[in-house]
Amino acid sequence: MLTYKAPIADIKFLFEDVLDYYKHYEKYPEFEEATPDLVDAIIQECAKFSENELLPLNQSGDKEGCQFDNGQVTTPKGFKEAYQQYVQGGWAALSHDLEYGGQGLPSSLGMIKSEMMGTANWSWAMYPGLSHGAMNTLDVHGSEEQKQLYLTKLIEGTWTGTMCLTEPQCGTDLGQVKTKAVPNDDGSYSITGTKIFISAGEHDMTDNIVHIVLARLPNAPEGTKGISLFIVPKMDVDSQGNILGENNVSCGSIEDKMGIKASVTAVLNFDKAKGVLIGPENKGLECMFTFMNTARVGTALQGVCASELSYQNALIYAKERLSMRSLKGAQQPEKVADPIIVHPDVRKMLLTQKAFSEGGRAMIYYASQLVDVIENSKDEKERKRADYRLGFITPILKAFLTEVGLESANLGVQVFGGHGFIKEWGMEQIVRDTRIATLYEGTTGIQALDLLGRKILLSRGKSLKSFTMEILGFCKDKSMISGNPHKRQMNKFIWPLSKAAANWQQYTLRLALKAKKDRDFVGSASVDYLMYSGYITMAYFWAKMAQAAYEKLASGVENRDFYRAKIKTAEFYFERILPRTKSHAATMMADPKSLMQLDEELLSFL
Amino acid sequence: MLTYKAPIADIKFLFEDVLDYYKHYEKYPEFEEATPDLVDAIIQECAKFSENELLPLNQSGDKEGCQFDNGQVTTPKGFKEAYQQYVQGGWAALSHDLEYGGQGLPSSLGMIKSEMMGTANWSWAMYPGLSHGAMNTLDVHGSEEQKQLYLTKLIEGTWTGTMCLTEPQCGTDLGQVKTKAVPNDDGSYSITGTKIFISAGEHDMTDNIVHIVLARLPNAPEGTKGISLFIVPKMDVDSQGNILGENNVSCGSIEDKMGIKASVTAVLNFDKAKGVLIGPENKGLECMFTFMNTARVGTALQGVCASELSYQNALIYAKERLSMRSLKGAQQPEKVADPIIVHPDVRKMLLTQKAFSEGGRAMIYYASQLVDVIENSKDEKERKRADYRLGFITPILKAFLTEVGLESANLGVQVFGGHGFIKEWGMEQIVRDTRIATLYEGTTGIQALDLLGRKILLSRGKSLKSFTMEILGFCKDKSMISGNPHKRQMNKFIWPLSKAAANWQQYTLRLALKAKKDRDFVGSASVDYLMYSGYITMAYFWAKMAQAAYEKLASGVENRDFYRAKIKTAEFYFERILPRTKSHAATMMADPKSLMQLDEELLSFL
Repeated sequence: MLTYKAPIADIKFLFEDVLDYYKHYEKYPEFEEATPDLVDAIIQECAKFSENELLPLNQSGDKEGCQFDNGQVTTPKGFKEAYQQYVQGGWAALSHDLEYGGQGLPSSLGMIKSEMMGTANWSWAMYPGLSHGAMNTLDVHGSEEQKQLYLTKLIEGTWTGTMCLTEPQCGTDLGQVKTKAVPNDDGSYSITGTKIFISAGEHDMTDNIVHIVLARLPNAPEGTKGISLFIVPKMDVDSQGNILGENNVSCGSIEDKMGIKASVTAVLNFDKAKGVLIGPENKGLECMFTFMNTARVGTALQGVCASELSYQNALIYAKERLSMRSLKGAQQPEKVADPIIVHPDVRKMLLTQKAFSEGGRAMIYYASQLVDVIENSKDEKERKRADYRLGFITPILKAFLTEVGLESANLGVQVFGGHGFIKEWGMEQIVRDTRIATLYEGTTGIQALDLLGRKILLSRGKSLKSFTMEILGFCKDKSMISGNPHKRQMNKFIWPLSKAAANWQQYTLRLALKAKKDRDFVGSASVDYLMYSGYITMAYFWAKMAQAAYEKLASGVENRDFYRAKIKTAEFYFERILPRTKSHAATMMADPKSLMQLDEELLSFL
Repeated sequence: MLTYKAPIADIKFLFEDVLDYYKHYEKYPEFEEATPDLVDAIIQECAKFSENELLPLNQSGDKEGCQFDNGQVTTPKGFKEAYQQYVQGGWAALSHDLEYGGQGLPSSLGMIKSEMMGTANWSWAMYPGLSHGAMNTLDVHGSEEQKQLYLTKLIEGTWTGTMCLTEPQCGTDLGQVKTKAVPNDDGSYSITGTKIFISAGEHDMTDNIVHIVLARLPNAPEGTKGISLFIVPKMDVDSQGNILGENNVSCGSIEDKMGIKASVTAVLNFDKAKGVLIGPENKGLECMFTFMNTARVGTALQGVCASELSYQNALIYAKERLSMRSLKGAQQPEKVADPIIVHPDVRKMLLTQKAFSEGGRAMIYYASQLVDVIENSKDEKERKRADYRLGFITPILKAFLTEVGLESANLGVQVFGGHGFIKEWGMEQIVRDTRIATLYEGTTGIQALDLLGRKILLSRGKSLKSFTMEILGFCKDKSMISGNPHKRQMNKFIWPLSKAAANWQQYTLRLALKAKKDRDFVGSASVDYLMYSGYITMAYFWAKMAQAAYEKLASGVENRDFYRAKIKTAEFYFERILPRTKSHAATMMADPKSLMQLDEELLSFL
């Protein structure tokens, strides 16, 4: 049986000591309610709900899965009731607009909520998660009327939402979307087409579902420039939100998947369903892009959640399971064997999980702070700067954190040995649930092209330079030449980090030159480049955490062990994880020829 | 739906051009029947059986799983019939002793059989696979009477076999085995205890199952030195093999697992079951060790099978799925988009799968040749040399090939994008089925300790030196200074390979010195060291394959593309995969302090 305790001390460490969240909140008058007391209370309540209500439904939800019967979907036992509790607890409204019934708290608090709930039960958390995506779309692109009708219902949790993008012939390449939207006389549209892979696309939790649908107007330009966005409710409603009847949206089937079995993945058939346009005609993809970063950071979170859950359970097991003796001699001679945690390789697996969980969380919370700025700053320059930075780190977070999250989940299985393969322990489920994370919301390959091709090369390296400047600025501040009182201890991080940041720039420049001569250099280097970037980015956050821990220790704080553990984990990261950049650096610089020279027909002789 | 075609050209390339198998067979008079004609016929028949009978049961077997009802286990539809066909086709007898009804063909041919059947359907192949393990035990340690009774039945396939080692409290650490064997007056023993994780432990394919059971005699020494081996049939039999009745062996339950769902994993309760001792008293573990290498190479094979099956299907999909355009511009402008195989990163994933499949197969076939020598050579020195080498490479094969096999299976899912997560395609099943491979038959961590601790450091580096001498000998033979007509082309492989082999020795020496001062260095370096060793070993086999391909091309052979593809895949391996050694080299040399300094209690503050 899986256990989970919300890592409140870790969360507060980031909030208070590393990322200075309260000072950040103070900058925005609308966050005046986000005081330490309130934030603490929210974290405590959220932890309780996640640990007591959502975790117990995690493995049972996997076992039961969603049931499909003649267009109706039944979610696993307890899911509906947990959703009711979620709504009653006001969680749906937490970080949404006061004007439409929200509580107006910062998005970054919403992320902490998502983290705890998502760690306890990612499948369940996808239902509110998708609503969140629909709410963001309405918030930014909806008309006042659309917001009053749909956003209000979503914020109060009476309805849930979806994002309907993928079709059988296309997922990544949305220019191929075929779903049609034909104007009706009343200003609405008739939507016809098939959408697949629709998370939360049909369920029994609410009476209505608000689908945000990508479709093509008659005579729209071909490709990505001819796609528009529509609101298509499952049930037809009047302007007050009263349900009038069916709206020709039917669920054709649900997918049988490797994992997240309790999260429904629907095939939706729109057969002249009534919808309304949201945002300008033919600008649907651009509208989607406005909050794509937030959505992708939300998916990056899955890697951290998986890593945390797997780590917590692997650690318990490693302390209990007795097998063999330490090579140094018996550590617990009174027992029939030593607990496996005495073995260095078991510790290496656990520390890898720990480093990825805590390092990943720091990266996510950093991004959340940027989202707060983007959504709330009155200073356009500041807003743009935050948006630029978020755009740069999003593909790193999405791809890197889901890849290492999957690795961490697999390490958790490995710590359990053969028992990790058995369902009742729950460890293998974390792997299955997390396997989707490197695929949806843009595969790792797509994120890598976004990072290197679009974000870096198109900006002529500016986006990278601005981020490495931040890293090098930190290094300078904390280095030997600065007045940092912890400079001596920090040196072991500062030196490799500044070297890594400088190399990152160097390699990028060389890649840019090579890509000019051969466009395939971008695709050929991209995934290695992304992972390379991810390891350096995480090193930056581990160095920041170490610095914060030294400062706390110097301040004479209690619970000194907590801060010492942070520093030692940072040391582990720098010695055992950061060197992975060496291999990625070597392979990303290799000539694309080794990938492209073999003709397609010569890849197999069967 | 998964497809599979046996890679006959690849198999024959290794047989004929790389490893000179026919010359090898000619050395042993008992293999005189293993002529090219017979081998070809066997390969063709085996391919047919695997493709037509076993593959169709792969996904259905996963869906249906094994059913447990009141001690009885029902295997998925078609499994029993396929087993009957297997027996009727004489496959069970292929590489076993003529004296007991076998066909007396080389073990290496048995490995090819296992490869094809295991690729088509690993779960199904585990039933005959476990019989094979029991047969090996009987063959080496059984008395004439035991062989006449049990081995004959296993070879004819009338009964199947198992290996009963694991108990709830121990898997790796078999010194903790509690199952008891009490002598009876008639020379037999009463066996009592619980065994778990017993593959093929109960099923409906045959009337009887021969369990090979580890148990403890009364007053046996504690730990590993007090364990004996017993034959315990499920059904009590007379000396002619007629079934007399139940033998107090019952199946308590079966495990619900992540994968290999069609392969039953039983909990077996022995309640004064009648057994006979096999091998000497208290020498059970040593008896097991005699063929542990073969068993582990058999598990290493799972990595190759997974990689091959995943690659074949990913390649088909990558040629068909249309998404986006090449960054170089449209490659197939007549289509709505280019097939994804134009994208460099998709090619990188496919080539990684290809390199692991073909490189892994070469490593397995090399090991198989050693097994042939061990089993058949009359020259004790030659036999010992082969055994020594097999002992050295076994942990590398087992851990490295299952780790990269799992990576390859995951890459196959990644090529499919979101569709890879959906069951009907079968790609996610390969990941689930293969996840067990790094766990059973000794986890990756255990293999790594075996390699570095036992095989290398205990031999004072001799085992490694002898293998790197083989590699360096090959390099010298094929290098610039030799008479090799392909020396110019081979240079790109010879130089990095000889450098890698030399580094391998250097690092090992340094590790040995460090381990003398701190025993934790062994465990702390071991897994990185093993992966490092694996990448170099595979590089050796890719260089050998490249050399063989150059020779074939020079000989004016037809099907030149086949050989060119081998060379280009070798180039890919050296440029894109071998550099992974850089990171492993860096992290394996790190001080164990970074793993051990954090007290167990400081690993979590929940």
